[in-house]
Amino acid sequence: MSAEIICVGTELLLGDIVNTNVQFLAKELAILGIPHYYQTVVGDNPTRIQEVINLASKRASILLFTGGLGPTPDDLTTETIAQCFNRPLVEKAEIIEDIQRKFQARGRKMNENNRKQALIPEGATILPNPTGTAPGIIWQPEANLTIMTFPGVPSEMKRMWTETAVPHLKCQGWGKEIIFSRMLRFRGIGESSLATKVNRFFDLTNPTVAPYAALGEVRLRISTKTTSATEANAIIEPVAQEIIKIAGADYFGKDDDTLAKVVGQLLRNRKETVAVAESCTGGGLGTMLTGVAGSSDYFCGGIIAYDNRIKMSLLGVAPEVLETQGAVNSIVAQQMALEVKQRLNTSWGISITGIAGPDGGTEVKPVGLVYIGIADPNNEVDSIDCTFGDRSRDIIRYLSSCTALDQLRRKLSFN
Amino acid sequence: MSAEIICVGTELLLGDIVNTNVQFLAKELAILGIPHYYQTVVGDNPTRIQEVINLASKRASILLFTGGLGPTPDDLTTETIAQCFNRPLVEKAEIIEDIQRKFQARGRKMNENNRKQALIPEGATILPNPTGTAPGIIWQPEANLTIMTFPGVPSEMKRMWTETAVPHLKCQGWGKEIIFSRMLRFRGIGESSLATKVNRFFDLTNPTVAPYAALGEVRLRISTKTTSATEANAIIEPVAQEIIKIAGADYFGKDDDTLAKVVGQLLRNRKETVAVAESCTGGGLGTMLTGVAGSSDYFCGGIIAYDNRIKMSLLGVAPEVLETQGAVNSIVAQQMALEVKQRLNTSWGISITGIAGPDGGTEVKPVGLVYIGIADPNNEVDSIDCTFGDRSRDIIRYLSSCTALDQLRRKLSFN
Repeated sequence: MSAEIICVGTELLLGDIVNTNVQFLAKELAILGIPHYYQTVVGDNPTRIQEVINLASKRASILLFTGGLGPTPDDLTTETIAQCFNRPLVEKAEIIEDIQRKFQARGRKMNENNRKQALIPEGATILPNPTGTAPGIIWQPEANLTIMTFPGVPSEMKRMWTETAVPHLKCQGWGKEIIFSRMLRFRGIGESSLATKVNRFFDLTNPTVAPYAALGEVRLRISTKTTSATEANAIIEPVAQEIIKIAGADYFGKDDDTLAKVVGQLLRNRKETVAVAESCTGGGLGTMLTGVAGSSDYFCGGIIAYDNRIKMSLLGVAPEVLETQGAVNSIVAQQMALEVKQRLNTSWGISITGIAGPDGGTEVKPVGLVYIGIADPNNEVDSIDCTFGDRSRDIIRYLSSCTALDQLRRKLSFN
Repeated sequence: MSAEIICVGTELLLGDIVNTNVQFLAKELAILGIPHYYQTVVGDNPTRIQEVINLASKRASILLFTGGLGPTPDDLTTETIAQCFNRPLVEKAEIIEDIQRKFQARGRKMNENNRKQALIPEGATILPNPTGTAPGIIWQPEANLTIMTFPGVPSEMKRMWTETAVPHLKCQGWGKEIIFSRMLRFRGIGESSLATKVNRFFDLTNPTVAPYAALGEVRLRISTKTTSATEANAIIEPVAQEIIKIAGADYFGKDDDTLAKVVGQLLRNRKETVAVAESCTGGGLGTMLTGVAGSSDYFCGGIIAYDNRIKMSLLGVAPEVLETQGAVNSIVAQQMALEVKQRLNTSWGISITGIAGPDGGTEVKPVGLVYIGIADPNNEVDSIDCTFGDRSRDIIRYLSSCTALDQLRRKLSFN
């Protein structure tokens, strides 16, 4: 009993997109304990899709398809699957209604092309797509073979997987022993430094501990395979606590905790508020903070001072400083943080000013040099400088916002 | 004559890593004009690897392998390939020397494990790895079949591909005709509506035209296989122009044009500037605009007015309006746009105020309702309302910023 993943789409053969869907599904199959030995990508070509289905249905008992469910003529997954098992397509009225409702909600009319998406093999069940117009199917065309189809849009696929496919697979008896993991998240320490500190845990067999590098943070995953969350917790928790103790202030959260979420919770607990003053990030820090639902409890707003004129007019930065020292230094960072806090009347002010590149760097102030300022509730102001090196503009900006959040987190946690 | 890509590695089946190697190779094959119809991922299991090779060598004349070239016992690619074609492995002294040299340069001694990496099938040529210890092979085990192997480390694989594999394939006669494509990008029209309008182009054979859906835009790719960029242009350009004419204002750019880049170019041409006033996006629009290098030419800054107090204090929104009508309506959007333009002294002001969810929606003002305001150089103010439906907070915020940019683009292009 094993599963296979089949991704349909000429865009994958042309290298137009990275196949993140297959990684997601692979990980999920591993969690559910469903073995999986092959992944195949095939283009929008019915003969080749059919060949892949014929082979895979001999090797595996669960076939997961992504892609090819759209309204255009080159979306062929559903009809090819039906053909493979000699079953006709039937039009489902409830799918048409659902698509019409979605078009209406966006103020549009359903197109005739979309009718195609309502055709599913006779005997198949609809795998509902809550957000997009392309539903999938769950179908058992023959004994010991289950087929599930998902659209290629990752967000739609993931939601359909979690809300419908996983419960269905659990009903079939999968996932009794499942892999439980906890991801511990660290910031302000490199992967190899953290690995050295917690080296001995890597030899554990239950739970296992493995490091994962990610942009702007380091992660350790603690995993165990067992039948209940309670048992998993009893195995994972003591190891997690030991590691957290070793990591100290560099540990910031677990699982889906983000820096923005952690900072938000700390501010909420302290009944404090924050405002941002951003130059090179252009709003990226505000975007991160407001990415958390409910952030209006503590985030008031900010000033994007990209142009130096705005730094002067809205943030009171002295023209002489900008003239003699430029915009990227601790004086400007501190002034921005203090002024935005005062103008917006918040407990805290955070600022970012730096050189995101690719142009604008000099010998003394290279691309990747960023200053972060923080003004605290007592109007005391502090700043740090970071050198993110010669990386891409996007990455420098992203790391700048992460570091600003992390600085605030440390002050909120330990002051 | 076609190629297949076979990626070997249990870590891919476990979903531990995204398979970026396959995307790189797929794109490269497309550029060289080498057809490629299947990609397969298989674990570190000799029987299954063998099965995959047997099938692929019947379908294709070039097999590209990534992964499984390391020194550990589970690295099985090379020996399994040799077995498939009944050929012995031979130890290559020059590989051993090369590995020893690399270890020395890092101040270390070669491990006995690494000897395994010097074994290649009899008759195969070494595909040198300038940076890592795992060389690949180029091997023609039978007529009309070329096998190339690459390590799984992306940087090593890419360099080996470019420096050795591509010249080899070109010697074999590939890459004389290569695929040229142009991606046309549209906004403000759904995939199926655009498909209906340009339906007849999908039947073309040279160039071919194919639709691609992406979040916040629709794309059409026009491709042709030919020997020179000039000739490609002569084939693609007339079709592109016809499609652009049909799409009218919904066409916004080609290839790597983004809305932010296009808006930036329009502002630069007109020597005009812009400022943003953001509520629910919290800085996302500013982030998009400043994501473009050189955006300081036209982007001055903005005000993030997340809290209604900031909408009043920094953007002059009347308390009565907020009290009686709330923050999500055309009056507030228009006032925000006009005020930020005036305070920051720019040519244009754009604002966004809406309900990003998941909470905060009502029957009258549901989640996904967003108002976008634009103040023009004559201080004339306009606004539109969008209903992005019940989608995720991230997506609603992203689409809000895209729509704001698109509205500005339309005004800049056609006013």
